[in-house]
Amino acid sequence: MSKNPKIAVFGGGSWATAIVKMLCENLEQVGWYMRNQNAVDYIKENEHNPNYLSSAEFNVDQLFLSSDINEMVRYADILIFAIPSAFVKVELDKITEELSSKIVFSAIKGIIPETGLIVGEHFNKMHNVPLENIGVITGPCHAEEVAMERLSYLTIASKDEEIAKVMSKYLSSNYIKTKISDDIIGTEYAAMLKNIYAMAAGMAHGLGYGDNFQAVLMSNSIREMKRFIKKVHKMKRNINNSAYLGDLLVTGYSVFSRNRMFGNMIGKGYTVKSAMMEMSMIAEGYYASKSAYLLNEKNNINTPIIDAVYQILYLNKNPKTVFKNLTNLID
Amino acid sequence: MSKNPKIAVFGGGSWATAIVKMLCENLEQVGWYMRNQNAVDYIKENEHNPNYLSSAEFNVDQLFLSSDINEMVRYADILIFAIPSAFVKVELDKITEELSSKIVFSAIKGIIPETGLIVGEHFNKMHNVPLENIGVITGPCHAEEVAMERLSYLTIASKDEEIAKVMSKYLSSNYIKTKISDDIIGTEYAAMLKNIYAMAAGMAHGLGYGDNFQAVLMSNSIREMKRFIKKVHKMKRNINNSAYLGDLLVTGYSVFSRNRMFGNMIGKGYTVKSAMMEMSMIAEGYYASKSAYLLNEKNNINTPIIDAVYQILYLNKNPKTVFKNLTNLID
Repeated sequence: MSKNPKIAVFGGGSWATAIVKMLCENLEQVGWYMRNQNAVDYIKENEHNPNYLSSAEFNVDQLFLSSDINEMVRYADILIFAIPSAFVKVELDKITEELSSKIVFSAIKGIIPETGLIVGEHFNKMHNVPLENIGVITGPCHAEEVAMERLSYLTIASKDEEIAKVMSKYLSSNYIKTKISDDIIGTEYAAMLKNIYAMAAGMAHGLGYGDNFQAVLMSNSIREMKRFIKKVHKMKRNINNSAYLGDLLVTGYSVFSRNRMFGNMIGKGYTVKSAMMEMSMIAEGYYASKSAYLLNEKNNINTPIIDAVYQILYLNKNPKTVFKNLTNLID
Repeated sequence: MSKNPKIAVFGGGSWATAIVKMLCENLEQVGWYMRNQNAVDYIKENEHNPNYLSSAEFNVDQLFLSSDINEMVRYADILIFAIPSAFVKVELDKITEELSSKIVFSAIKGIIPETGLIVGEHFNKMHNVPLENIGVITGPCHAEEVAMERLSYLTIASKDEEIAKVMSKYLSSNYIKTKISDDIIGTEYAAMLKNIYAMAAGMAHGLGYGDNFQAVLMSNSIREMKRFIKKVHKMKRNINNSAYLGDLLVTGYSVFSRNRMFGNMIGKGYTVKSAMMEMSMIAEGYYASKSAYLLNEKNNINTPIIDAVYQILYLNKNPKTVFKNLTNLID
């Protein structure tokens, strides 16, 4: 890795925007790819993202903006992907440049639907990026609070401690504290699973369950997450660390959470289609619940909460009935 | 234990009232002691508690009410204490009847300030109640949601499984699910410690920290709680069960939480005295933070959050400065 590696963020959403903001605190130049040329033009003109996290202001002289993904891949030594998981494959399929020599960070919270792989594995298997060159950036961190510069903690995971440390350094600032980890698989799964549990929390709320039940649901969620991750990637980890439990809590309890909001609408009686139409953002948990459910068909872990969300979203089961049943499966 | 043991609840607050309500779902008669004779008279006349949880209606024919604590001790085979920990000793000192043959449940979330003992230990050491006859009733459960009959889960702990099962049976209903445990020490400490962490969460909120930080604070709180309880009573337990983590979350995140509210006022700049005057209820975490801090002086566990709360409440340290320092001690 060069001493002053070039870093680029891929994505035009809230989280991508927040990461660009964090990097701008430390770097002279930050690459920023977004597929929409209009958005690129808008940012150059107005110094903020037109669609997401628009309260975050940028010094455009610091930004190297492009809607050409190959140009951005060529530019960067370290690539940070923050594209919703459902669109990752479409974007990556545009790449003709070689990725195998790059350091790739995933700030995506989900599974690539087309391959059923978490993002790190997808880069490894589909784009020949060595596992040692793959990292994960995870919360608990709502982008909205980064825009407000409210103190937030990130976990930077990589098998290569040096890489994790470098990324930590570039993301840290007076409102961002970082911690490093070597659990790239576990942190990615946690980031994906938490969206399902946040959706369940929203559904419960929409159905009229109260705070007492929410606490039981979250307590069961972290135990379910622990079982799930242990099965897919066994290693020593403290599931109560911020990257796992903290990330679950911020998503399950915060009003900023789109997954919770989506679940809430479902609980209140919206159909999946109408809830999707109401929201201008993708709720990652929607895709994640299917991926996790399918993955679990072979792993056979006891995951009553994931199962409940899947049944409601994909099998069109009645949320009230499914939750009534779920209350007997958790404790 | 007789086949139809007589049960009495001691206390006139929200949680005592909620427990009486739960028992009334299953028992023909429930004993209810409160020190205030005016409240007793009011309930007989108006069928609800005048001061706390007044939306919970009672059939007074089901209640055996008294403001004479010895009369109530004589009446009951199983005694459930739900008096704020700061007042327990004063109340217990009135008792001249023998307690050693009774089954005693603690639904108190705190340490008896005068003895520095958790409630179960206090009954054991000061009133000769055998440890096997002691139980704990714990949440996650806000009394307010019991009044609304919102689904809630309780954990009933006792060394004697039979006793735990009997109490579980009497508390269960269509809105209360129960689970039994043998960890009477751990569940009591958890119930006490969670109030300190809820107070910290409130302080953070009052100081302007956001949801991202709250999630990190809660993630660190449960790890700190685990270290603390492991030191005072080592046994196999899953700290993420509802009685520990769930109880922490419901207290840390709910608007019903008096401890969180108290902390919030401190964070916003109220003095301890003025915050106490503003609230008509006792915030258990106030006493708990001192007890836990003192207990920890000899145990020497790393408890930065308890320490921070103690420094603010008892050493008059500036909340802003203490939290600024705390942000570097947690991750």
